[in-house]
Amino acid sequence: MRCVILGGRGFLGRHVGRALSSEGHEVWSVDRESESITDPLPWVHGEVRCAYVDIGRWLEKTGHPDCVVHLASSTVPSTASESPICDVNSNLIGTLHLLDGLRDLSVKPRVLFASSGGAVYGRPQATPIVETHPTVPLGAYGVTKLATEHYFRVEEALNGLPVRILRLSNPYGEWQQPRGIQGVVSAFAFKALHRQPVDVWGDGSVIRDFLYAEDVGRAFAAAATHEGGARVFNIGSGEGISVNEVLEALERVLGHEIKRDNLPGRPFDPPVNILDISLAGKELSWKPEVSFDDGLHRLINWLRTV
Amino acid sequence: MRCVILGGRGFLGRHVGRALSSEGHEVWSVDRESESITDPLPWVHGEVRCAYVDIGRWLEKTGHPDCVVHLASSTVPSTASESPICDVNSNLIGTLHLLDGLRDLSVKPRVLFASSGGAVYGRPQATPIVETHPTVPLGAYGVTKLATEHYFRVEEALNGLPVRILRLSNPYGEWQQPRGIQGVVSAFAFKALHRQPVDVWGDGSVIRDFLYAEDVGRAFAAAATHEGGARVFNIGSGEGISVNEVLEALERVLGHEIKRDNLPGRPFDPPVNILDISLAGKELSWKPEVSFDDGLHRLINWLRTV
Repeated sequence: MRCVILGGRGFLGRHVGRALSSEGHEVWSVDRESESITDPLPWVHGEVRCAYVDIGRWLEKTGHPDCVVHLASSTVPSTASESPICDVNSNLIGTLHLLDGLRDLSVKPRVLFASSGGAVYGRPQATPIVETHPTVPLGAYGVTKLATEHYFRVEEALNGLPVRILRLSNPYGEWQQPRGIQGVVSAFAFKALHRQPVDVWGDGSVIRDFLYAEDVGRAFAAAATHEGGARVFNIGSGEGISVNEVLEALERVLGHEIKRDNLPGRPFDPPVNILDISLAGKELSWKPEVSFDDGLHRLINWLRTV
Repeated sequence: MRCVILGGRGFLGRHVGRALSSEGHEVWSVDRESESITDPLPWVHGEVRCAYVDIGRWLEKTGHPDCVVHLASSTVPSTASESPICDVNSNLIGTLHLLDGLRDLSVKPRVLFASSGGAVYGRPQATPIVETHPTVPLGAYGVTKLATEHYFRVEEALNGLPVRILRLSNPYGEWQQPRGIQGVVSAFAFKALHRQPVDVWGDGSVIRDFLYAEDVGRAFAAAATHEGGARVFNIGSGEGISVNEVLEALERVLGHEIKRDNLPGRPFDPPVNILDISLAGKELSWKPEVSFDDGLHRLINWLRTV
């Protein structure tokens, strides 16, 4: 199967590419021309450098895809809140252009979209959160992720584009930019490794569902060939870990204390987020395989080499 | 109270303006410069001609508003489906610019937003539909209405903008453009009055909740001073009438048969839509006062004068 990953050089794109390739698929990566990281990606068959919305341009090189994995995004929750207009212009309008382009193909590829299980539900009525939980996002990032999901669903209903939506919890692991503004585990691990204090938003009691990125890659590979009726899947560990517990685990692994700088809580952060992943277990035969402790060790080993 | 209606010259804007004025409020209308209908609006204190997103420009004339009624929209369900990108660019981005402008005001006005009870819920799990029903829009129009609702809700939570969202069913009545592309009752009545055949999408069994526009105006006037905790209100008749029943009622009122041209059903039309309006009854002390038969008579009397 020919799989085109939009954003295949990104953090998750690499894990998804590796997982698809190990299943025997032909993997292409489409990345913006401004992407500055140019290390070889051994699992890809080929690469195209252009805007992902420029579908005619990448199709010319990749040929007709069987599966398109849409991981391209220009925002994270904090930047989307700072400028919702940029978020809409880039991500929502971008995806609508992608849909326009795919609509013209006589044989429709399957599209896998990375949504956010941490952002679309909002404050959970109960945990773990099931896919049918009300979607009441607390910030702009969740609003556009949710709207994008709706456009994909409508596109399948009206124009027959086969779609699978993966609502990811909080992925962490190798290739996540440790100096970036998303991914608390990688950011903490990087700073702790270099004996710098870490920024904690609020009192650290916020609970998240952390998932090793290799498991995310395997979930996309499973969704690429899924034949069942479900369209939206929670992809998480199914377990909750507080920010304070992350720091304690890091202190155990590194063997030294980590200094915390406490900052005010962020109102768009839900207090708790744990995903119910039983649907993915049943329909995709997928479950996470890397425990948090193992993931943390692997992350730190990778960070030592960066 | 000073109330600024964005789109005050539109179909609903006129009913809302008249209702607010009759409650003793000072009413302003902001309408785009290209608006060609220029009859006097006896209920307004003043008018401004500019884009509603140009908030600095209209604020200069209106002065600080206590209440902003956001009725400005450039699409209807069919045009939004034809071009979701235009829909997002104009309505979603426009509203985000409005929020940017309102955020700068030290005293925040209340904002009333006209959402769509016909579009945001999708295919109902049960009727009448309550406000907590899942929101699964079937077309692009509902996706942007819903995303706009979410942005308003987030804006209240993060920045204290007081917001009320009115999810309207299918309004009809005087001032609705009978040659327009929205509003089946007005379009049918106008054609039937002129003994022209009417276009029926599908077999006419589709059930809608039709509300006389004067009742919509009264609902906005009630929401302008609402002090309770609810933020989202269904505003409808609470009763379902099929498209075929609309035609039968028109035939009774007009005393002649109406010729139907049957067209294929439209996939973004839910088969049934009836709103539960008990929350508006309880919190806004509002209920519809014009029966369908009375509304139809008043609509036809008005159409005879156009």
